[in-house]
Amino acid sequence: MPIATSALLTDLYQFTMLQTYHAEGMNEPAVFELFSRRLPPERGFLLAAGLEQALDFLENLRFTSAELDWLSGCGRFSPEFVATLEDFRFTGAVDALPEGTAFFANEPVLRVIAPMSQAQLVESRLINLIHFQTLIAAKAARCVLAAPDRLLVDFGMRRAHGAEAALLAARASYLAGFAGTATVLAGMEFGIPLFGTMAHSLIQAHDHEIEAFERFAAAQPGNVTLLIDTYDTEAAARKLVDLAPRLQQRGILIKGVRIDSGDLAEHARQVRQILDASGLSAVTIMGSGDLDEHRLAELLAAGAPFNGFGIGTRLDASTDAPTLDMVYKLQEYAGRPRRKRSEGKATWPGRKQIYRQIAENGIFAGDCLGLGDQPRPGEALLQPVMRDGQRLAPPESLADIRERVQRQLAALPSALRANRIEPYPVIIAPELQELAAQLDRETH
Amino acid sequence: MPIATSALLTDLYQFTMLQTYHAEGMNEPAVFELFSRRLPPERGFLLAAGLEQALDFLENLRFTSAELDWLSGCGRFSPEFVATLEDFRFTGAVDALPEGTAFFANEPVLRVIAPMSQAQLVESRLINLIHFQTLIAAKAARCVLAAPDRLLVDFGMRRAHGAEAALLAARASYLAGFAGTATVLAGMEFGIPLFGTMAHSLIQAHDHEIEAFERFAAAQPGNVTLLIDTYDTEAAARKLVDLAPRLQQRGILIKGVRIDSGDLAEHARQVRQILDASGLSAVTIMGSGDLDEHRLAELLAAGAPFNGFGIGTRLDASTDAPTLDMVYKLQEYAGRPRRKRSEGKATWPGRKQIYRQIAENGIFAGDCLGLGDQPRPGEALLQPVMRDGQRLAPPESLADIRERVQRQLAALPSALRANRIEPYPVIIAPELQELAAQLDRETH
Repeated sequence: MPIATSALLTDLYQFTMLQTYHAEGMNEPAVFELFSRRLPPERGFLLAAGLEQALDFLENLRFTSAELDWLSGCGRFSPEFVATLEDFRFTGAVDALPEGTAFFANEPVLRVIAPMSQAQLVESRLINLIHFQTLIAAKAARCVLAAPDRLLVDFGMRRAHGAEAALLAARASYLAGFAGTATVLAGMEFGIPLFGTMAHSLIQAHDHEIEAFERFAAAQPGNVTLLIDTYDTEAAARKLVDLAPRLQQRGILIKGVRIDSGDLAEHARQVRQILDASGLSAVTIMGSGDLDEHRLAELLAAGAPFNGFGIGTRLDASTDAPTLDMVYKLQEYAGRPRRKRSEGKATWPGRKQIYRQIAENGIFAGDCLGLGDQPRPGEALLQPVMRDGQRLAPPESLADIRERVQRQLAALPSALRANRIEPYPVIIAPELQELAAQLDRETH
Repeated sequence: MPIATSALLTDLYQFTMLQTYHAEGMNEPAVFELFSRRLPPERGFLLAAGLEQALDFLENLRFTSAELDWLSGCGRFSPEFVATLEDFRFTGAVDALPEGTAFFANEPVLRVIAPMSQAQLVESRLINLIHFQTLIAAKAARCVLAAPDRLLVDFGMRRAHGAEAALLAARASYLAGFAGTATVLAGMEFGIPLFGTMAHSLIQAHDHEIEAFERFAAAQPGNVTLLIDTYDTEAAARKLVDLAPRLQQRGILIKGVRIDSGDLAEHARQVRQILDASGLSAVTIMGSGDLDEHRLAELLAAGAPFNGFGIGTRLDASTDAPTLDMVYKLQEYAGRPRRKRSEGKATWPGRKQIYRQIAENGIFAGDCLGLGDQPRPGEALLQPVMRDGQRLAPPESLADIRERVQRQLAALPSALRANRIEPYPVIIAPELQELAAQLDRETH
């Protein structure tokens, strides 16, 4: 199982709080909502992602005997308390945005309603799972918007933050509209299409570049993409022109070339010319090397004749905005709305709903953050997905989520669709503002 | 096993290259070195970390039958080639920097010598493992240098990029001198000391803040750290002054408080005054909330009376420099040195060694990147750690690595110790420059 499942994937304070709740017999229903307090300056919207893994985590959450032994032996917890964890299950309810839904600051992407101890323990891992995929899906969507007609492939495993990040980045970028990934295990685990070419080492290991090209082509006749920048990009393209007829006689077609260094736009133009002049206009050109949505936009604005791009480091680590200010906050306990008032970190209390207005042309016209039991005009975005600890429906297919993302991106206001950072209107319903003010008067 | 082990944690192109090597019968010894082409603008040095997990990966690398079936069924590989993977083992040699060693651009942190197919397949995961922990260890070391006498704790699980990143960030920051982590599974897996307080939700779930304090204290009498910024920080400190004598009568001491929002320096000063004026000078003050080495330096320069800090998001995602330009490059094949010449990405060929000059006062005086078989003055840093696929020694203890880091940080030039970004002198030995020039003349 490449996605970690341990119930100890949490912060120590969850257990100290659970022990307090246990001592007090305090386990009334708690309502927590997961949201981003603000968007990074580099992002105009987010895309909900990671719900599937979050629901897996909740459905399968239990303590192994080794974990219970460790908790007993660590000297912090009473035997009575640890014993209560033996049969720990998540039995609560979850409402959430379907994966691929666009959302904005302060809008809940997920709500948990469960006995306090359950709802509290899962905080750290729920944020960890939803935060990362949402982060990557938003970054990937910006790449898709920058290069809508090009083949985009996730190349980022090596500089993703660990194996789980690599796998989930492959998933999140595929949801957002990438064609696939180079990470093999993501192919096996999630059924994501795989793409891959060759590394410079294969060229270097041969005494002659053309010999490396020929042997590589012979070994995968159905899928020949050659890396041509190891020594001299244009010289390599000319070697390929010499090689192509020889390969064709053996029934092998060169599908594409990849350029990974230097002035990508200029090299692509030169290579395109060399290939076209020799009847190799069907050979595609892939670009790679420190790409992101800004470089894609530059390359395409410069008319660089790339058919596709491998996008690695800057996607998998979302380097310009490597985290979101995503939190999981108590909104109600034992039937009473609750509000955190810490400076700069105050929250909107209660069980909320996002009501999205859609203009006649299908474009999102603004959201209202209101209360779930006081409907407002517009589409209510949070949907029930789990009751009594059980999913309400089988997992959505990645294909369905990809279609949702396409529809969502098409419906974004034009500035956001153009990757410009402009605020999207989210108003706070008056009844929600009133509830917050009322709690501020009461709490001390 | 929270650290993923699959042999499919690699890029597709490794398999397409392996299939080529198989078809050619090309499996001579290959020498690859892992290094960072440059340091991020925000880093003056790196700390080698992740070797332990890299050696685990190499020692245990094998294909499961499910993985072999998947490879056979994916339509890309010949049955003969997939059959060769059944008995795949890593049988090669590894030399590496001991974990915790400071290093700089172009200096190999690890070298693999193995039959080409083995050395190639492991590229993606070796970079993935070494890159991330090295990244976090360097960030954590900067925090340690900024606040050398304070208790520093990793609070970053929730916004780490997945579970593996959270666990490995806990390990890397502990190696670099942090006191511990809040991530419980890192306590169980690595024996890292755990720290934790309470969340705002516990305060919010009670109708009165002081009631939450009292109940929490009663439930963990040995470890009471109270979060005091949910509503009004100074008011909460005064409530605590009222509460402390009552708790003391029950044998419960308040160990500390945590402040997580607002003007941290000002709140800490006010709270310190309130506590000291009431005889609670033994109660410590922890700070948290978007901290990094720059904020730590500011807070301490302002004389803010913090005893320790919880450092989360900006540590676990290394937000100011979320990736390193770390690569794994072929340096020799079949006994011949090899060199990649791609524009801006050329490498130094051959089996290299780092020779570090140490001044009489013990401070690092400069490195020479030379060839292993042509020793230069100074300490040779790369050490043999694996032969024939087997570790040469049992894993180093985290305590030993922590001691090494302390010695290394103390020996850094004073500018780097002060977290200033100044270049550290690394010269390229003339014989290495000559080898590169010679290969450039020969290769085409």
